[in-house]
Order: sequence, then C-alpha cells, then structure tokens
Amino acid sequence: MALMTAKQYEESLRELNLNVYMFGKKLQNVVDDPMIRPSMNAVAATYELAHQPEYEHLMTARSHLTGEKVNRFTHIHQCVDDLVKKSKMGRLLGRLTGCCFQRCVGMDALNALSIVTYNTDQKHGTKYYDRFLDYLRHVQEKDLTCDGAMTDPKGHRGVPPHKQPDPDHFVRVVDEQSDGIIIRGAKAHQTGAVNSHEIIVMPTLAMREEDRDYAVSFALPSDTKGIIYIVGRQSCDTRKLESGCMDRGNVLYGGHEALVVFENVFVPWDRVFMYKEHEMAGQLVESFAGYHRQSYACKVGVGDVLIGAAQLVAEYNGVAGAGHVKDKLIEMNHLNETLYCGCIACASEGYQEPSGTYSVDTLLANVHKQNVTRFPYEISRLAQDLAGGLMVTCPSEQDLNSPEVGHLVTKYLQAEPNTSMKDRMHVLRLIENLTLGAAAVGYLTESMHGAGSPQAQRVMISRRANMQEKVKAAKRLCGIEASD
Amino acid sequence: MALMTAKQYEESLRELNLNVYMFGKKLQNVVDDPMIRPSMNAVAATYELAHQPEYEHLMTARSHLTGEKVNRFTHIHQCVDDLVKKSKMGRLLGRLTGCCFQRCVGMDALNALSIVTYNTDQKHGTKYYDRFLDYLRHVQEKDLTCDGAMTDPKGHRGVPPHKQPDPDHFVRVVDEQSDGIIIRGAKAHQTGAVNSHEIIVMPTLAMREEDRDYAVSFALPSDTKGIIYIVGRQSCDTRKLESGCMDRGNVLYGGHEALVVFENVFVPWDRVFMYKEHEMAGQLVESFAGYHRQSYACKVGVGDVLIGAAQLVAEYNGVAGAGHVKDKLIEMNHLNETLYCGCIACASEGYQEPSGTYSVDTLLANVHKQNVTRFPYEISRLAQDLAGGLMVTCPSEQDLNSPEVGHLVTKYLQAEPNTSMKDRMHVLRLIENLTLGAAAVGYLTESMHGAGSPQAQRVMISRRANMQEKVKAAKRLCGIEASD
Amino acid sequence: MALMTAKQYEESLRELNLNVYMFGKKLQNVVDDPMIRPSMNAVAATYELAHQPEYEHLMTARSHLTGEKVNRFTHIHQCVDDLVKKSKMGRLLGRLTGCCFQRCVGMDALNALSIVTYNTDQKHGTKYYDRFLDYLRHVQEKDLTCDGAMTDPKGHRGVPPHKQPDPDHFVRVVDEQSDGIIIRGAKAHQTGAVNSHEIIVMPTLAMREEDRDYAVSFALPSDTKGIIYIVGRQSCDTRKLESGCMDRGNVLYGGHEALVVFENVFVPWDRVFMYKEHEMAGQLVESFAGYHRQSYACKVGVGDVLIGAAQLVAEYNGVAGAGHVKDKLIEMNHLNETLYCGCIACASEGYQEPSGTYSVDTLLANVHKQNVTRFPYEISRLAQDLAGGLMVTCPSEQDLNSPEVGHLVTKYLQAEPNTSMKDRMHVLRLIENLTLGAAAVGYLTESMHGAGSPQAQRVMISRRANMQEKVKAAKRLCGIEASD
Amino acid sequence: MALMTAKQYEESLRELNLNVYMFGKKLQNVVDDPMIRPSMNAVAATYELAHQPEYEHLMTARSHLTGEKVNRFTHIHQCVDDLVKKSKMGRLLGRLTGCCFQRCVGMDALNALSIVTYNTDQKHGTKYYDRFLDYLRHVQEKDLTCDGAMTDPKGHRGVPPHKQPDPDHFVRVVDEQSDGIIIRGAKAHQTGAVNSHEIIVMPTLAMREEDRDYAVSFALPSDTKGIIYIVGRQSCDTRKLESGCMDRGNVLYGGHEALVVFENVFVPWDRVFMYKEHEMAGQLVESFAGYHRQSYACKVGVGDVLIGAAQLVAEYNGVAGAGHVKDKLIEMNHLNETLYCGCIACASEGYQEPSGTYSVDTLLANVHKQNVTRFPYEISRLAQDLAGGLMVTCPSEQDLNSPEVGHLVTKYLQAEPNTSMKDRMHVLRLIENLTLGAAAVGYLTESMHGAGSPQAQRVMISRRANMQEKVKAAKRLCGIEASD
Repeated sequence: MALMTAKQYEESLRELNLNVYMFGKKLQNVVDDPMIRPSMNAVAATYELAHQPEYEHLMTARSHLTGEKVNRFTHIHQCVDDLVKKSKMGRLLGRLTGCCFQRCVGMDALNALSIVTYNTDQKHGTKYYDRFLDYLRHVQEKDLTCDGAMTDPKGHRGVPPHKQPDPDHFVRVVDEQSDGIIIRGAKAHQTGAVNSHEIIVMPTLAMREEDRDYAVSFALPSDTKGIIYIVGRQSCDTRKLESGCMDRGNVLYGGHEALVVFENVFVPWDRVFMYKEHEMAGQLVESFAGYHRQSYACKVGVGDVLIGAAQLVAEYNGVAGAGHVKDKLIEMNHLNETLYCGCIACASEGYQEPSGTYSVDTLLANVHKQNVTRFPYEISRLAQDLAGGLMVTCPSEQDLNSPEVGHLVTKYLQAEPNTSMKDRMHVLRLIENLTLGAAAVGYLTESMHGAGSPQAQRVMISRRANMQEKVKAAKRLCGIEASD
Repeated sequence: MALMTAKQYEESLRELNLNVYMFGKKLQNVVDDPMIRPSMNAVAATYELAHQPEYEHLMTARSHLTGEKVNRFTHIHQCVDDLVKKSKMGRLLGRLTGCCFQRCVGMDALNALSIVTYNTDQKHGTKYYDRFLDYLRHVQEKDLTCDGAMTDPKGHRGVPPHKQPDPDHFVRVVDEQSDGIIIRGAKAHQTGAVNSHEIIVMPTLAMREEDRDYAVSFALPSDTKGIIYIVGRQSCDTRKLESGCMDRGNVLYGGHEALVVFENVFVPWDRVFMYKEHEMAGQLVESFAGYHRQSYACKVGVGDVLIGAAQLVAEYNGVAGAGHVKDKLIEMNHLNETLYCGCIACASEGYQEPSGTYSVDTLLANVHKQNVTRFPYEISRLAQDLAGGLMVTCPSEQDLNSPEVGHLVTKYLQAEPNTSMKDRMHVLRLIENLTLGAAAVGYLTESMHGAGSPQAQRVMISRRANMQEKVKAAKRLCGIEASD
Repeated sequence: MALMTAKQYEESLRELNLNVYMFGKKLQNVVDDPMIRPSMNAVAATYELAHQPEYEHLMTARSHLTGEKVNRFTHIHQCVDDLVKKSKMGRLLGRLTGCCFQRCVGMDALNALSIVTYNTDQKHGTKYYDRFLDYLRHVQEKDLTCDGAMTDPKGHRGVPPHKQPDPDHFVRVVDEQSDGIIIRGAKAHQTGAVNSHEIIVMPTLAMREEDRDYAVSFALPSDTKGIIYIVGRQSCDTRKLESGCMDRGNVLYGGHEALVVFENVFVPWDRVFMYKEHEMAGQLVESFAGYHRQSYACKVGVGDVLIGAAQLVAEYNGVAGAGHVKDKLIEMNHLNETLYCGCIACASEGYQEPSGTYSVDTLLANVHKQNVTRFPYEISRLAQDLAGGLMVTCPSEQDLNSPEVGHLVTKYLQAEPNTSMKDRMHVLRLIENLTLGAAAVGYLTESMHGAGSPQAQRVMISRRANMQEKVKAAKRLCGIEASD
Repeated sequence: MALMTAKQYEESLRELNLNVYMFGKKLQNVVDDPMIRPSMNAVAATYELAHQPEYEHLMTARSHLTGEKVNRFTHIHQCVDDLVKKSKMGRLLGRLTGCCFQRCVGMDALNALSIVTYNTDQKHGTKYYDRFLDYLRHVQEKDLTCDGAMTDPKGHRGVPPHKQPDPDHFVRVVDEQSDGIIIRGAKAHQTGAVNSHEIIVMPTLAMREEDRDYAVSFALPSDTKGIIYIVGRQSCDTRKLESGCMDRGNVLYGGHEALVVFENVFVPWDRVFMYKEHEMAGQLVESFAGYHRQSYACKVGVGDVLIGAAQLVAEYNGVAGAGHVKDKLIEMNHLNETLYCGCIACASEGYQEPSGTYSVDTLLANVHKQNVTRFPYEISRLAQDLAGGLMVTCPSEQDLNSPEVGHLVTKYLQAEPNTSMKDRMHVLRLIENLTLGAAAVGYLTESMHGAGSPQAQRVMISRRANMQEKVKAAKRLCGIEASD
C-alpha cells in the first residue's frame, strides 16, 4: 500500500484518537470539524496528485530502501534531480491549494535525520541510522504524513534551556526507563499537526553539554497518550463556520497551526534518534532548516494563485488593458519568479552528504528564504492595489442572497459588462483570503517566520558567504599586496 | 450646543431612523449593534477629545461664520495653521483609536464645497455659496457628523456616465420638481456612513456636457427616505460578536464601510450645491481629493500604535535589546515620520482660494498619499517580523480561560520572565488586528484606495510637477541653447 | 556693503593668500584654476541671486542685529518662515547650479553657534555670545562666505580624542597664550573650503572631561598662517582641464572638497567661541547637524535638474510618450517631492531656542536626511534607465568635432528627427555628470555622508521618536492595564 | 592551437590592422594604448585562466564538432551542465577582473546562430547551418575572440527600419554581388570591439517583409576594410593616462565601448548567416538576448569584488565590528546571491533546441537580468555607505607622494592603528572605480542597458509567464465555474 488515496488518507485519520482542543473545548470529531476540514483537504491533495499521471514524476519517487514507488513526501533525496523536483512539487501544490499543504515539514525532518543519525553513528558508534531506516520504511510503506516538530516555546530568550525558569520551555527528557524515555515540553506553531499520523520531534537549537537532556529527537504516533493539541486562531477562521462558502475566499482548502504539548509522554527506544548527543543538535537544526527553507518553494505556487486572481479581478473590474495594471502584473510575476530562481538554484547546486542523502546549497537556501520574507508582502500589496477598495467593503454573501437587498448588491457591483458580478465577488474574497484572511497567515506571516525568522537567515548568510575570497579579489585588483 | 459630548452624540444617533442591512438582514438597533458599536465609539472620540483641555487647540476652532467655538471637523480652514492643525488632529485621533475615526471625509467635503460653490457662483451667477453657508451653519451649530460621499460604483470603466449600460451606476438626477430634485444611484465604500447625521454627495469625476445629469452635489439627513445602507464585510469582523474581547485586538474601537443606495431620494433645493454645472464637477473632485489625501495624516497615528505594539511585543518576547530589533523599530519610525512630513508639508504650503478657504498644496498632498499607499505595508511587514510567528498560531481567549487547557497555554506562552503572558497575547492580537484583521482594512487597504487609488495620485503628480522649469534648468547647465 | 555682487565676491577671493595644494603641487592662482573655478562660480551664484528681484525674498533677510538687508546665508533664523525660506533657497540654488554651492555649511555653523554660545554663557557665566555677535556683525557687513568645519579625521574609531595614538587626529588646543590659543589638527571633507573667506571650526562629537582640550570652537580668516588646503579628487575631475566643455556635463558649475590642516595656528581670543567647555560640545554638534541635515534641501533642486535632463533625453531619444517612460518620470518626481516634504516639514515645525534663534524639528530633520541617503540613488538609477546605454558609450566632443569621424558621429547619433543630435550629447553628459561624474560626488556620495552618515541619523531617530507615548497608546487599545 | 595563451592572444591582436578613433584621432598602436590596454588585459584573462588547472573545468569544454578541448567562450552548449558552467565562468571572471571581460557576447552570438541557422534551413531549405559550423570550426581552432554586434543606432524610434529618415540607421544590405554582399550602417555600444578578432553582426529586432534588407547576419574579421571604430568615453577614463596607478582603482583591468561603423563593407557569402529571411530575425534576437541576459552572471563576480572591498574598507576604517556594518555586508551578499540564483536557475532549467544546442529558460533569464538592473545599484549604494565620505574627498596619489604635503596626507588619513593608510586609499579608489568610475560603467549602466534595457525584459516576462494556468488555479479555488 505504498501510495494511499486521498480517501484512504481521510479514513486513516478517523482511526486516530487525537486529543485536540479549540476555542477551549475538546473536539469530538477532528476530521469532520469545519474549522479543520479544509486543512485536511490540503494534505489530502498530496495523496491525490500522486495518483495523477501528469504529476507522477514530481509527486512520487523510488524508495532507495525498497525500490518501491513512494510518495515524494516520504522520500530521501538521492540526487540533485530529487531536490529540484521537490521544489517543483512545492510550487505545484501551492498553486493547487492556494495555502499551506503541511506535509513538507515531515519530509524535511526525515531527510535531516537521515544525515544526522548517520553522522552521529560515525562519531559515537551508535546505531541510530538503522533505527531511523526502520522507521523510514514504516513511513514509506504506510505512506504516512509526519509533522516535523522543531520550535520550542523558548521561554526566557536570554538563557539556555537548562537555565530556563521553567525547565519545560524546551522539550526534554524527564526520565529514562529500560524500554524508553519520558518526555515533557511543547512544540509551538505546529502546522498541520492534527492532520498527521506521526510527530517527529527535533531540538530547536545548538546545545551545549549542560543542555544534554534537551538534545533529544524521536518520533511518535500522533495519538500517543500524553500529547495534547491546542489549535491556534487565524485571521477570519470562523468564516469556515458560516453558511455559504463565498466569503471564505478559498472554498476548498485551508490551514491550521497548533501548540503541541507533551505531558510525560513515553517514547520507546526504537523511535529515539538522538539522545543527549548534544553536539549533534546544531547539525540537525541546520540541516532541517536548510531543507525547510527550500520548502518555501510552495509560496511561489501560492503566488501563482494570487497573480491569477489579480489578473482576473482586473478583467472583472474592466481595467485589464491599462498600462499600469499590466505593469503591476509583470512586477508580481517578476518577484514570484525571482523566488522560483532561489528554490531551483539551491536545489540544483545541491551536494551529497556522507549518508548518501543530497542536501541543498545552504547559502542559497537561506538567500531564497530571506526573499520569501519580503516578496510575498509586496506581491500582496500589488494585489490589493489591483483588487480595488471593494475587497474590503464588499457586502456579505448573505446580502447578495437577501430577498430585500440582493438585487441592489447585484445591480451596483456589476462592473465590466461581459463579466459575472458574482465571479467578481468570488475573486475579491480570494484576494482578501490571501492578503488579509486565513491564507495570509500562510502566505505572509508564515513566509516571515516559518523555517526560521529573517534574522536567522541573515546569520547563516553571514556565515556562508565566502568573505575571504572576496577580500582577496578586491586586494588584488586595487594593488594591495597580499600578506598571505 | 456647538460642541456635543460623546454621550450626546450617541443619543443623537438613536434618534435617527436608518435603513441598514448587514448579513442580509435589517438592523433593528444600529447604535448598539456589536458589529457597529466600535466604529461609533471611534467617531464619539472626535466629540470627546474636543472637551479635553489638552487637545482643545487641535480639536476645535472658531467658526468664521459665527465666531463660536466649533469642532474642527465642521470648520472651514481660515489659514495655514488650520491646515497644519488638521493634520495633527488626524495623527492624534489615529493614535488614540488605532483605526479609522471616519469623520474627516465630511470635513473635507465641506471645505471643498466652500471653494467650489463660491467659484460656481462667480462663473454662473448662481447662489450656491449662500446656500452652502446656511447648511454649514446648521452643521456647526448642531456639531453634526457628515459622510462625504464621492465614489460611485462606476460600472463599465470604459465609458462615461451617460453611456453606462445601467444609467444608475453613477448618482444622477432622475427628476426635477418645483421644490427639489429626485436622485438615484449609489455610493460605494462609505466609511462610517451609519454613524453619520448627514450624507454629502459629490460627483466622482470630471464631467462633460453630456453627463450634466450626473453633475450634482447635495446634502441630506442620513435617514432620509429612500437611502439604504448595506454594511460590507471586513477581515475578522465577527470577532466582535464573540464572548471575551482579547481576540478583537483593538478592544475599544473599529470601523465599518457601507454601500449607500439612493432609491429615488428627494432633495430640497436648499440642500443642492451643484446642479448640472458639469464643468465644475472636476474642480470639486480635485479639491475634495486634495483635502482627503492630506487626511491620511491619520495613518501616521495608527502607525504610532503599531510601532508601540511592536516595541511592546519585543519586550514581552525578551528581545528588545537585540540590534536588529532596534533597527527595525527605527525603520518603522523613519517611514512613519516620513509620512508625517508629507501631511505637514502639504498643509504648511497651503494657499488661499478666492472664497477665503485655505487649500493644501495639491502636489505635496498627492505625494503624501502616494507614500501612504506604500509605507504602512512595510511598517506592517516589519511589525509582523517583530511579533514572531505566535501572532498567527496563538490559541484563543477561550483556550486561555479553559479549565482543561488554560494552564498549558499559560505555562507555555510565558516568555520574558518579568512580563505578563496575558499581556503578550493581548498585544499579539493588536498587531494581528492592525496587519491582518479588522484594522488592517483601514491601515492597509484603505491606505491604498481611500481618497483615490495610487494611479490617481500619479496622474496628479504628473500634472503638478513643473516639468518646464526642470527642463529649462537642465538645458542651461549642459549648454543647450534655449529656444524660448 | 552688506550685499556683495558676484564680481565683488570673486575680487575678494583674489585678495586672499591661500595655501592650496592639488595633485601634489601648490596652486599659484586659486581663483582662475580651471579645476576650482566651477566651484567658485557656484558660490558666486549665492551672491548673484541676492540681487535679482524675483529671488530677493528667499536670498536675503533683515539682520536682527542691524536691521539691514543681508544675504540669507549670513542670517540668524528669527522665525519659522526664515527656516522654510532656507529650505526653499536650498532647492532654488540646487536647481540653478546642479551641484553643491557650498555656502550653507557656514550659515548652519553661525546659527548653531548663536544658540550654543548663548547657552554656554547661561551656564558658565562666560561672554561667548557677545563675542559671537561681534563676529556675526562682521560676517554680515562684509557678506562673507564661511566654511563650517566639523569633521575631524577621527583616527582610531574605537577610542576618544584624548586616547588617540596620534593626538592630532581631532583638532585641539596645543597652547594657550595671553592673546589667544594655538591649534593643531585637521578637518576632512571641507566642501568649498578654498572659496571661503572664513573657516569656522567646531568639535565633531560630544566630549567628556578628559577631552576638554578638544572642546574648542573658533573662526579664522581662511588665509591665516598655518592653514593648508589639500584638494581631493572627484570622479571625472580632470575633464575640467580638457579643451571643449561638452564632456564636463555641467558647463557652468562644479564643486570641490579639501582636507584642511591646521599647523599650529594662532586664534585670537575674540574669535574663540568655545574653550574647554566640554559638555557643550555635544550640543553644538547636534544643533549644527540638525540645521545641516535640513540643508540637504539643495538635493531636491539637483533632483529637479536630473528630472529635467531625464525628460529631455527621453524627448531626444524619441520615447517621451511611452507609458513606462512617463511612469519613471513620475516616480522620480514623487521621490524628489517626498524629499521636499521633509525639508519643509522640519522647518515649518521649527521652534525658538533661548537665544531667540529658531531651530528645526530635530526628528524630522534627521528623517529628511535619512531619505536623502536613499532617494537620490534611486532617482539616479531611473535617470540612467531613461538615458539609455549611450550615456556611457558616447564618443568624445573631440570625435564629434573630428574632420575624420565627426560626420559619422553626427550621422549615427541622430535619434528623434526634430531634435538636435548635439543637444542629445549635451544632456547625456549632464546625466553622466550627475550620476557618475563630478556632480555625483555631491548628489550621491555627499548625500550619503554629508551632515552625518546614515547611521548617525538612525541613532537620532531612535532618540527622538517618542516611544513611551506609542507604547501607551498600544497598551490602551489592546486592553493591557497601564501600570503607570 | 585550440587554446591560445594570453601572450599569444596579445600577439594575435598586434597583427590586426584596425581602424580605431579616440578623442578625434586615429590610434597608431591599439594594443599598447594606455586607454585600451586594461580592457585587453581583461580579455586576456579569459585565455590565461583556460590554462590553469583549477579553472579548466569551467573555462574549457570539448568541441562537439572536433572533440578537441576548446575555450568555453567558443563552445556550443551541449547540455544543462554547460549552461550552468557558463554562469559560473561568468562569476569567476567577474570576480577576477572586477570589470567587463567582453568575450561573452561572441559566445552568445555563436550559440544563438547555431540554433537559428539550423531552424532557417529547416524552414527555407537553405544551407546556413553548415556554413555556420565551418565558421565555428574556424573560431574554435584559432581560439578567436568575437564581438557579437546587435544594437543598431535605431534613429527615429517611431518607425521601422525601412521608413527611417536615414536608411542606414539600421545595418543593411546595400548591394548584392556574385561573391558576397555590401553592408552599410553601424552598431552602437560594442563592448570590447577593438580587442576582437571577429565581428558577428545580427539584426537588432524582429523584422517584417518590408524590412528584409535589414534582416542580415554575418561575420567578418575585425580589420576588414570599411570598418571604423570610434571608442566612447567612460567616467574617469583619462585616469589611465595619469602617472601612478592608485587613482585608477582597478590597477589591472578595465573596459571600453565603441561605435562600430560599416562603410560599404564587403561580406563573402560563406560568412553570411541570414539574408533577407526577415521572419527569422526576431528568433535570432530573442535567442541571443536569452543567452546574453544569462551572461550577466558576471556581475555577481563584480559584486564579489565590491563586497570584498566594502569589508576591507570597514576594517581599515576601524568599524568592521559594528552591527549596522555587518548587517549591510549581509544585505550586499544577500542581493548578490539572489542574482546568482537567477543565473544558475535559468541555466539549470535549460532545454534542448532542434539543432541540439541547449538554451536557457527564457523567462528566468529575463527575470535574472531584470534583477541585474536593480541590485547592483543597491549594492553600490551600500558600498558607498560603508566607504565613508573619504571616497570622494581623498587627495590624489600625487599628494600622497608630494614632498610638501605627503606627510600630512599620511598623518591624517591613518585610521585603524594596525592597518595601512595607503591600503585604505587603494581600496577607496577601487570602490570609487566600481560605483562612480570606469568600472561603474560596466557594473551599473551596462547592467541596466546591456542585453536589453529593463523594459525589454518586462515585455518578455509578460509574454512568458503562464497567465492562463494562474487564472485557472485562482478560479478553481474561489469557486468560479470554469467556462473552458
């Protein structure tokens, strides 16, 4: 069963017994909850497309373990082409769903672990890599969705984990037993957590000796006892509860984020991939961050949707032929394709790690992500420019359907004669969704902070730019005699 | 009673019999409707502050008609200092309310009419100016809030009003009677319409002879028979209906926008300020637009709130001392004060019109507004950078108060030790409100399109920049002999 | 003789016996030196315009000492209107000369000294203010050009003046005598130094007790014994030595910068305005910096020239009607007028100091200058876009005039039929001059570093933005109870 | 002799009998002319590096014609890896020379011709491709430097070639003979023309039937009778004539541009690659433009030099540790690497043409070039920020060496104690060279206009962005029923 269908995926979620809270109450039926459902649909698309012949080359790969066809989201990159296809898959799904499809974070965790468990074994003589491969086989065979959980709440920013006023502000080992370990703590900002079969936990920063109880990585079924999910709010979230669906903007898909709490959770040894090897924590963070910064390829696809919507609204508004309108669309495309260049280049410049896994070029992946913290905001601003003020003054779907005022809405919102006034409302709601609403959470704020906030990328750019080579070149050209 | 109190203002609204629709239903009690109330509070602040001694110099002025102290929102600018104080009043109220306080549009309509009715009389021998002064006296004495209504739905963008497939897509005179005229059409994007005592209608663009039935300006009580208000949706609007108020972000104030429909409305002659003098329409549009572009001084005040919130969240997050954080706050201030320079400069370079009214410098007012279509987006992006991802993943107020998971939210959202975890949630919601939520409608999208979309300002900049003088200077310096 | 003519100014310079070096050699005739002459012409324009009726209101003022009409460059600002006129005079002269006219720095030094000598007397019971007024009377009566000299070479950036490896890296008192003091050190980047009658020296940073020998301010005739000028290089400087003048770009005016060295120079007591009152040094720096940041109003005038040149070249190239060309000109104007807003606003928000002198608003002056470090670069980039590649591939004036190839240049450089091919070459050279050549030194690099480098403005913006007020506003709106 | 040495290259140039004019006079010795020599050195570097083992993989390739090792500048791209290596070679040489090394334009012409001659034969049954391959064999065997000449003077922009007031404003066939054709016209902005062995002429725009006499492409030895070169001026060009070399900034390399005139030049048939097949002209333009926009990879290397220089000057100034300085260097690197992503991505997404040649991805190549018209300007601005004002006020090398004032320059320009004051002058001159001087011509203005001005790229971005796909995605997500 290496490739589940979307339907099978949904059914598999029903079998989980997740402990999910939202608006202060426990959810009885997660899969059918109207707030969660659109985000489940987005993950389901990663299953659905794997069965479509035109997307098969992007969506699937051959397992290097079994030679079987697997969903690319469970695949370990075996060559540069795998990395490039990962970026293209991200754009494809971003364009298809117009939101965050959540499954990349698990793929990135698996690939990072494939490198670091191998390296740890080389250094420490441990057996993590085999353990990891067993787990990977399980994930590939069952075609599971994994949540890659890295970000701790972090508490007091000024002190390391072991000096935190509340020692649980970073996920930690609280007890060791013969059959496994006991974990306490939480992971914040977990995208798509309640749509996942598995939670893969990694440390959130480089650790020193004193923090070794925090240097822990492991995987667990998402409904393991002691795991609690508290779903966060998003802009316009409750529009999903309203009758009608026009005002949601994106009528098919959405996203969610959760705080995931581990209340003394037991992890069996065969699911532990790092245990107190503190000096490997930084490597795992950096490797995961590199992959995950590449993953923001998806925003190029969401950008495609927003550009398409902007083109549409210009047509419905009757101004698609104006010079400044065309120029703004060009600028949106230019920025979006500049982002595409970044996720392609960091992939095509990838290299092989000792484990055999291919890594992206770290410098370029960080450069890519840094642009992702900027350009979607400008694309979004331009989209709002093209949308016109109606985007934020448009009456509700209920007004449109009202026997009392519906005819007035219909009469006065008609613009370009040969277009549908209702389609105009639809696309305005989509632009609202992407630039202010639920999808803006993913397209803007997540672009800013996901896979590390902007300053994290700047630190990496500073480290990875070869300044010595540049200084040497400058010295030679202006006639400064090299001392070295 | 030249200066109403906030309480009196609220009572005066209760006496109106407005015909307001929202979510497809007619509102029975507009003033107490939870969706409308915060926007009413914002207008009420314009009354309240006029009674506070420290703000009196900005909030009030002496009527040039009666010598009485009047609210500045009903005042005709008599000198440059009046114009400068208008800009400062805008910033003050923006900072105080963190949203759109709605009343400036009426002030701008009154001032524009004071100029154009006078000029029309000079040209046509009409008596509009006296009529207008009578009306102004009424507004000043009763301290009324006026909605200045300019933007027509516009229908087919490619053709002038008289060629529209639907002739009502611009407000027009459908009949003339001995005692007045009959009006049909609509005005879109009417900010604060249902909090107004009066609606002042103006044409939306320059008109030719053929469009003379559309060259009409008049004022009416907001509850005149035949006027229908359909309130538009805003991002996160229904959070105002939720229990608790933390998740609203701005717990005190808000805004609203409405589509205002005129269904064969009667206007008595003494409230008609333009009637088929088509060649004056452009002047009224331009004069109003100049004033209203200045009015975006208010966004500097909203920017103050967002900068304050960003400073606060940096403190709560425990990173206020980081170099990049301080630099981002400087950049936010720099951009915000650049906006301030614009609204001050266009005022301080104002000049007197034939009627005696002072106008802003048109070029600089357009330059100011053009910056308003850009900088709040960048300030907003920087605020999201400083807020951190929690802004879009934070659990709800109900989760915080939940007996089951409240303790987990409290435990894991605590950051900087000496700060309140609850305050952190509060300020994150405020930044969400200003950058994605209900206030983003005003701070971002309205900044883009209010008082004319960006391209409208560019056209004006093109017209008003003295290119001949510049070309002459260039020719002289590079040795091109002047032919003229 | 309160207002010299340009001719008289030139003659007055001939009477000076300056010690000027350039390209390693001493200049025998400074006034007629072809490298210096264009910069002298620019200063002369400040005299010439004062006699032209249409500019009199900007170029002259009434001395508050004598009631006589004086050149505004020697005037102490007596009201907000004086400050606004200063900004307008800067733009006027920038537009007229297309370069740096050098005289503002002395005006800014005089105004800063008028404030600080007064304040020093209040604090220390000294008599500097009277001394200063005597000096001012002398400057006003003789209509002198003063060089305001602030920037020291600074040597080792990490240590204060008194700890410098070379104690002369900041100007200092090396001896005190009964009749005056002996000074050693240097001032760098002295714009227009060799066109000045007087050098006014001020400290370059706030000083502590240990640095009191460096807390010194004084004025001297520019040809005082011991003062040596070493003129710096500028891009394309030697084009001024070539035959023909087309390739200079600006055929009338230019600028120069010099390193001014003080080799044990004697200053009589009546020209000493600060002497070891170390705690006043910071105030003098800040006051001068505020005025001088406003002075970058001149770049708006230079921007006018560049915009005019860009318009012209578009016409000569035959593309002035293209949409993207018009839009770039609008953007150039928009940026340039945004700068104008800054220099107007910081002036119109000025206030009175205890001495009676009017100061600019410090926050807005810094905001203005910060924009000056950015926008001219973008205006320049757009000008290069409009100029086309020919700007950097155009043959020389000698080629144009060559009997062998002149006809080919003439034939192939003709573009738009009804324009002059030679005029096209002229204006291309002007744009080259302003964006890469000698004037780029002033329009770009001086805009960056003059009156303090960008970071200096950011520090001031950080200090002057009222963060407490903003934080308070944010707290109130999101429901955080104020603790204060 | 497939790989010439730098020395051999120089000697080969001496054998040419070029007709070159500069400053109105004919050059007697081009190779040793001090104005031209630095640009010859830069081309020579493309020969020199091909012999260095560490660069061999980038600098050379196997000819697909002969299997011999050839200089990559004469190679036809046979795979994606060739395209990627081309980008890397560009960056390498840009970093090594700090200027334009001129040879890419010929490589791009050869590759474009390999595609279009093949396609023309397919369509017209002609034999251009074989002819071209013969020529290519000649170029590869002799390791020739070719000037790819595309840009016509264009005259009256409003009319096509055949309607020009002067019919020679586009290169054209003026006569056909049994053994060849006669050509008249000119090509402007020819980078490195006088360092080339061959001139390859291509049409400059798509042509219609009426313009068929202008649809001509051919190659000629650069010293063919009737070809005249008029070398254009560059900022600071004559510094190359001065004694000393510090003030040149780049003491090793430079560039030049020329107007190349064809005065009734004879072209034998075997060097004609297009002859009146007007509908193929557009394809040749587009193919060449695609390759040449990729070639701006070189600016990433020049950016490396400028970043290195900025790092150095910060060290010499003693401020390399300041937070804002480090942040500016990060930003420079970020922008520079974003450019790198563009030239890598358009290469790695390359595809095979019918002729077998590999083309770059056109959309991404245009996106890359568009960024090149922006980022170098900002990198340059930041470099000027870090350099400090001394960059434009620094005394000359003669002053430094002057017995009279040299000691003062030495004393007062010393900054950070452990650095060399002379090195500081050196690096300041390099930054001046790159941002205002001779190299700014290449790094800035050529980045703007080379390979097509910004608007040309925008037109291509507009054409190549798949808008239908984007519109379809948007419609689906917001619930608009697809009509198609």
